[in-house]
Amino acid sequence: MDKVYEAALLLDFYGQLLTKRQFEILDLYLNNDYSLGEIAEHLNISRQGVYDNIKRGRAMLDRMEEKLGLVHKFLQQKNRALEILKDIKSIDISSMSVEDAKILKRVEERIEEIVES
Amino acid sequence: MDKVYEAALLLDFYGQLLTKRQFEILDLYLNNDYSLGEIAEHLNISRQGVYDNIKRGRAMLDRMEEKLGLVHKFLQQKNRALEILKDIKSIDISSMSVEDAKILKRVEERIEEIVES
Repeated sequence: MDKVYEAALLLDFYGQLLTKRQFEILDLYLNNDYSLGEIAEHLNISRQGVYDNIKRGRAMLDRMEEKLGLVHKFLQQKNRALEILKDIKSIDISSMSVEDAKILKRVEERIEEIVES
Repeated sequence: MDKVYEAALLLDFYGQLLTKRQFEILDLYLNNDYSLGEIAEHLNISRQGVYDNIKRGRAMLDRMEEKLGLVHKFLQQKNRALEILKDIKSIDISSMSVEDAKILKRVEERIEEIVES
């Protein structure tokens, strides 16, 4: 998996356990693509301070995932939903009743919601 | 939702953040249906000690869910899967090809996996 995407997921899941400052900095870094220098300037702190917060914050997020594994659990559900979606899309709806075809379309949309959530 | 089921879910999600003793006691209490007296006897500690551990452990689990809301997030996915399952089961497979009917059966089983996970 993409390293930044993975870290952003960890922040999304466990970010509320960080200090406000750590969260703020990691959010700028991971979700808004700020460089360390830009974050330092934006928050008016030293580059070293930014670096330390990222390092400690990341360590905390990794520790949480190591203990709880909830990002992994959630990604498993998503992967299951993706597999299901592929199956659903492979079904030929032309022989189904209009009503059943509608239901299957709705099922497809709902599974997409799980995949994208 | 059933209070014991809810607490057992919280323990399943966040239990690794408790002390070993808290986890052990809550596991006996919630998942093995031991009474406080039985736990006290089983672990050779006072009833008050059991009570304190349950109280502190539960407070920690509730605090985690308040901060992270991951049990709620997970239950939302399950509810979505349940709704999808109902739709799938309502589809008339008699007019489908054998191949498509098989796929739909597999889809149903996989969604059941999500519901039961």
